[in-house]
Amino acid sequence: MAVALLAPTWLPSVPGIRLATCAAGIRYRDRDDLLLIDAGPEAAIAALFTANAFCAAPVRVAREHLAAGAPRWLLINAGNANAGTGQAGVAAARATCAAAGEVCAAPAHAVLPFSTGVIGEPLAVDCIEQALPGLCAGLRDDAWLAAARAIMTTDTVLKGAARTVRLAAGTITLTGIAKGSGMIHPDMATMLAFIGTDARIDAALLQELLGHAGDRSFNAITVDGDTSTNDALVCMASGASGVEIKTAADRDGFAAALDSLCLELAEAIVRDGEGATKFVRVIVGGARDRGEARRVAETVALSPLVKTALFASDPNWGRILAAIGRAGIEALEIERVGVTVNGVEIVSAGGRAPNYTEASGQKAFAEAELDIVIDLARGAAGYTKYTCDFSYDYVRINADYRS
Amino acid sequence: MAVALLAPTWLPSVPGIRLATCAAGIRYRDRDDLLLIDAGPEAAIAALFTANAFCAAPVRVAREHLAAGAPRWLLINAGNANAGTGQAGVAAARATCAAAGEVCAAPAHAVLPFSTGVIGEPLAVDCIEQALPGLCAGLRDDAWLAAARAIMTTDTVLKGAARTVRLAAGTITLTGIAKGSGMIHPDMATMLAFIGTDARIDAALLQELLGHAGDRSFNAITVDGDTSTNDALVCMASGASGVEIKTAADRDGFAAALDSLCLELAEAIVRDGEGATKFVRVIVGGARDRGEARRVAETVALSPLVKTALFASDPNWGRILAAIGRAGIEALEIERVGVTVNGVEIVSAGGRAPNYTEASGQKAFAEAELDIVIDLARGAAGYTKYTCDFSYDYVRINADYRS
Repeated sequence: MAVALLAPTWLPSVPGIRLATCAAGIRYRDRDDLLLIDAGPEAAIAALFTANAFCAAPVRVAREHLAAGAPRWLLINAGNANAGTGQAGVAAARATCAAAGEVCAAPAHAVLPFSTGVIGEPLAVDCIEQALPGLCAGLRDDAWLAAARAIMTTDTVLKGAARTVRLAAGTITLTGIAKGSGMIHPDMATMLAFIGTDARIDAALLQELLGHAGDRSFNAITVDGDTSTNDALVCMASGASGVEIKTAADRDGFAAALDSLCLELAEAIVRDGEGATKFVRVIVGGARDRGEARRVAETVALSPLVKTALFASDPNWGRILAAIGRAGIEALEIERVGVTVNGVEIVSAGGRAPNYTEASGQKAFAEAELDIVIDLARGAAGYTKYTCDFSYDYVRINADYRS
Repeated sequence: MAVALLAPTWLPSVPGIRLATCAAGIRYRDRDDLLLIDAGPEAAIAALFTANAFCAAPVRVAREHLAAGAPRWLLINAGNANAGTGQAGVAAARATCAAAGEVCAAPAHAVLPFSTGVIGEPLAVDCIEQALPGLCAGLRDDAWLAAARAIMTTDTVLKGAARTVRLAAGTITLTGIAKGSGMIHPDMATMLAFIGTDARIDAALLQELLGHAGDRSFNAITVDGDTSTNDALVCMASGASGVEIKTAADRDGFAAALDSLCLELAEAIVRDGEGATKFVRVIVGGARDRGEARRVAETVALSPLVKTALFASDPNWGRILAAIGRAGIEALEIERVGVTVNGVEIVSAGGRAPNYTEASGQKAFAEAELDIVIDLARGAAGYTKYTCDFSYDYVRINADYRS
């Protein structure tokens, strides 16, 4: 069960961006599994992709098409990741882009393909081709909720969020949808997120701001440390509002909205983490630089021993210290390290805090949302990692997955 | 239940090395929990310790005493790790060494302390002090099996092994014991291993050979990637056989026996891994150097998605590829990567092998022992990591641990 996560019942339209979904029968029966998005003729599109060397065919093709310039259309399918499919998979991804281009009167390279689902199965290109004319005819601006539903795989909760931002140049909307319930399933693969805005913004600036937002959100979450072959985060700016992001103040306002929207969507993925019963922020401060703060945060957030203790609501601070200790921080003075959990001081000066009691620790660890604050006391840099606990259900979901 | 692991029913004595155990009541009732070892007046002792910055008090004191030269005695307790105990813990470790030295007519720095058990609790120094005279009086050479039992914590199977080696200079014995059933419990902490031999060997050479053996055994196993605050591997050479390790050939013969003994003991820890139902070797070859082979082996061996698939006997090769892909190998040509599991070719040229069938994969993954052989096809270096699967019981054991 997801941790304090409610599906949106409505998502605002974004002027200039139209969407359509349908049941193409790629793998599922009786549900939408194909999504087409038209970002408009003047769209600026930015994207971040998985760093996994075994990236899927659609990731390779989407990167190529983005580099070719003038992307406008996104074609997303659920049920098949088109990963581990070799050259035939790349050809299949290209074929779907060509087919979409033909139907939408666009060159193939104006279409960016995205896939999520099982690995190693050939993509049913014919199902997609047959669905495309109907999809193209059905494009509308108020289909964000349906779009969020069409890209779900093992998600238990539909994920979407929006922001309305009043800038000096005018008011703009950002609406985003995401899917993913583990970081990650290479089977039912992937974290995908698509954000639309009607702001007018230079593509290079959008890429820069998306990189910043992604680094502090989607790249800062982890369920189990695994990385998908298909992960992608895309932001489309239609420009339809006529509100141009030019001044430093408007840029900051837009960036803040994008950051917070990305973080809300990324948090939703963790809250819907496989088998998650707790939502946990590992907040490291007092580091010499962001890199070492990140190493400590990641080591704690990924420790199976910490995560099983969190599941058990067990204030097992020795496991947190042991994880900090193996993060590879040079010349760490353990006598200076402090840890608080939801405000309860647990470790000070590298050992059990003088006023700490097992009862106060148990109370703090019993909460469904935990802030584990770690002070390395050697600098001013910090990093926050978002994660969840490790439960029986994690093993059940991932062991029973394909059966 | 441990994977194909039988407790030894007998372990050979090592001339010159005497042991004694007793129930000191440190934490457990009705079982031995304290072990004293006398390596003899001419002993050479080598040791490897945890790399965790939060190392326990006994690790700090043992390192100091080793550096002081002339170590002879080992004092090991189960039930309390004396970790996360600050300066009081260091003082407690020193006090037990001083007490042992007094009873054994030795300086405190001739005693090396080791502890395993719960973190953050004060060590019951008085229990140890009271037990020491009896222990010292009870030293005998045929107590290796009792010693292996006294150091167990959550181990389900007692761990010990031995080698008899015929060298040109004469015949020598190596007998070893180990404890640990996760890599690791920072609660009931720790991997500990103690090896005795009657060979006569220079301490510096023994340290070098133990470093080599430990790197390919205890440092090559992982259950969950966590690293204890108390891990230690010790080799004591009494010299009592009079067989001196001098020639290159004898050195090689001794090293080979030490390597194989360490590997058997280390494998036993994985086979007794928390909740383990499979014993898995991740054998990476074709790497440019050992470092990158190790990174790939570790990433695969630690991936929760791979480990839960192993538990399910699910030939989910996409998860193995995804783990290889995120190991951070520069310019990895995924089109050249091959994977076989117990001889069944699963991946070739970066995709599903042409002759692979789901049935053949299921048969291979159903075995209790799995060799996952990964060929990176870009060099001649390799590395093997030993691990186990991730089961419901792992979560149960680690979540229920302190309750």
